[in-house]
Amino acid sequence: MMRSRAITNKLYSSYLLTTSKSFPTSSSIVPPLLVKKFNGSIFPQFQGCKNNFLFPRVYMSASSALLNEEVRDKGIGLLKAVEDQHGGVIVNMEEPMDSFVFASLLEASISQWKRQGKKGVWIKLPREHSNLVASAVKAGFKYHHAEPDYLMLVYWIPTTPDTIPANASHRICIGAFVMNDNMEILVVQEKNGRFSGKGIWKLPTGAVNEGEDVCTAAIREVKEETGIEAEFVEVLAFRERHKSFFQKSELLFVCMLQPRSFNIQKQLSEIEAAQWMPIEEYVAQPFVRENELFDFLTKVGLSKLSGKYCGFSTLLTSTSSCKKSYVYLNKIDAAHLSTSKPHQT
Amino acid sequence: MMRSRAITNKLYSSYLLTTSKSFPTSSSIVPPLLVKKFNGSIFPQFQGCKNNFLFPRVYMSASSALLNEEVRDKGIGLLKAVEDQHGGVIVNMEEPMDSFVFASLLEASISQWKRQGKKGVWIKLPREHSNLVASAVKAGFKYHHAEPDYLMLVYWIPTTPDTIPANASHRICIGAFVMNDNMEILVVQEKNGRFSGKGIWKLPTGAVNEGEDVCTAAIREVKEETGIEAEFVEVLAFRERHKSFFQKSELLFVCMLQPRSFNIQKQLSEIEAAQWMPIEEYVAQPFVRENELFDFLTKVGLSKLSGKYCGFSTLLTSTSSCKKSYVYLNKIDAAHLSTSKPHQT
Repeated sequence: MMRSRAITNKLYSSYLLTTSKSFPTSSSIVPPLLVKKFNGSIFPQFQGCKNNFLFPRVYMSASSALLNEEVRDKGIGLLKAVEDQHGGVIVNMEEPMDSFVFASLLEASISQWKRQGKKGVWIKLPREHSNLVASAVKAGFKYHHAEPDYLMLVYWIPTTPDTIPANASHRICIGAFVMNDNMEILVVQEKNGRFSGKGIWKLPTGAVNEGEDVCTAAIREVKEETGIEAEFVEVLAFRERHKSFFQKSELLFVCMLQPRSFNIQKQLSEIEAAQWMPIEEYVAQPFVRENELFDFLTKVGLSKLSGKYCGFSTLLTSTSSCKKSYVYLNKIDAAHLSTSKPHQT
Repeated sequence: MMRSRAITNKLYSSYLLTTSKSFPTSSSIVPPLLVKKFNGSIFPQFQGCKNNFLFPRVYMSASSALLNEEVRDKGIGLLKAVEDQHGGVIVNMEEPMDSFVFASLLEASISQWKRQGKKGVWIKLPREHSNLVASAVKAGFKYHHAEPDYLMLVYWIPTTPDTIPANASHRICIGAFVMNDNMEILVVQEKNGRFSGKGIWKLPTGAVNEGEDVCTAAIREVKEETGIEAEFVEVLAFRERHKSFFQKSELLFVCMLQPRSFNIQKQLSEIEAAQWMPIEEYVAQPFVRENELFDFLTKVGLSKLSGKYCGFSTLLTSTSSCKKSYVYLNKIDAAHLSTSKPHQT
């Protein structure tokens, strides 16, 4: 199902076309006094009020139909939108706008999109235009996703079930299995979270950043939490968990790393303590003994160290759009296959 | 957001009634078992988020009795909030509120939280209270994430770098490698997306739903797109890709499935055509030949069929919170390990 990516690509390329083209000619004909009076008397909140100065009063008072005709003659009657390749439209609100003006233009625009048989309507609202959120919701829009600096809303026009792609659904985390030549495993005690203050020694763990590779995240987390330099060896296993993070799902990749330095410098902000711990002491902890998964994965890690287990290691390839991309697979079993094109890392 | 004075007064009155009910001794009326701490951790052990938003309405009165009395005398309240486990507070706006009232309460509340040395402040705003978004943004809040029916905002009080956990960062997709006994591979042509109308026969693919297991999603997508019943065998490999979906990252799991039915019934909405295609015809497509990854993964799939490759299959285990959880690993290599606790599927 390639729909989601297709929408995204179209969406972002489309934004480039719409930059600063919204409502180009309105600012020069505003009666400031009228607008000021209008602001104070109607809007209970202040966001965007200054933006009223950018719009002629006629926008604020006209019915959508009349507004539509009047302003269409001026070429500025509907919200600036671009089509996506799935029969929908995308509005990127890059310019400030009074919320009442926005509501009128949105109503007129939706009428037009309905006549045109459009399906999904996307509105990207930068945080600085949060004064427009309530108007979009009032018009029937739902939230799709949000990032620190913008909110994406979406509205499905047809009466048929929507085919709107879901928001990001998962968080990816890593757990690092790092052992030195003395059969000591690298462990930490965390300052926060449910293990805090319990004296539990656990593997370094952390979240994979957006845009970060799993193998890179494992190396980064080990370095951040313990100061240890290490090389990624392979993914020993991964585990699924649901409703673990704002109701999202989570994949935890247990990665084996080969240490390249041994002097521990623990992270001050998140780590209470870090050490190289004899493996028998680590597995003897009730926390490990009583958790079937931790217990089993420790055995897997030790099996890997003795050469009796093969997980997934990385193969650097290119995507169809020529971006470098890591593939994780059993390279030992795949060694007999032609890898003339994929480049081994 | 336009609101008449009458509505404003009504909302304000109902708000005061609400606050007066739960004001002075609210903390004492909370059943301790219900007051779970927010566990907004960046660590993979993060759990139980749903409960964080089911708290009784509680005021931050514990260490601010004086301020509470002052504001009570003035008829001004503080926003209802509960503490999280990381030195922050959570406000869940369950009741409607005028944006003016919200803005003043938020200002007073932030002042108090600053005095108390609080760190992250979370505000969950159901979509029906979108009139409050602009006020929160004006107070300095950023968006954290959004789902169709709510927006989560967050504000970091200290001057130190924030430790706010990231939003969901990934989308998980599957590609299904399904072959019958005639060495024919199950392939589809999609109606939408970048492969649309190009006559390209590709593996069934799709997004893993929130809360859905990878192995289950592979079976579901094959059934939805082709009508074929199949059993999950294993993950042959997975691929990372970044900035692929609203700038999020994506993990694509290439899964081998064993077909249990063979009569194709294509999905009308998304699939243009579906068929069992001789494998040599599939790999002869320029689309496959010219894409090093598709070409290589096809070889991996065929190697698996000939018993020369082992990917990751599922092991059903329990999390520390006793929820069932799938672990994916090389079960052939791990067969010699004790699996007395993890239950094989």
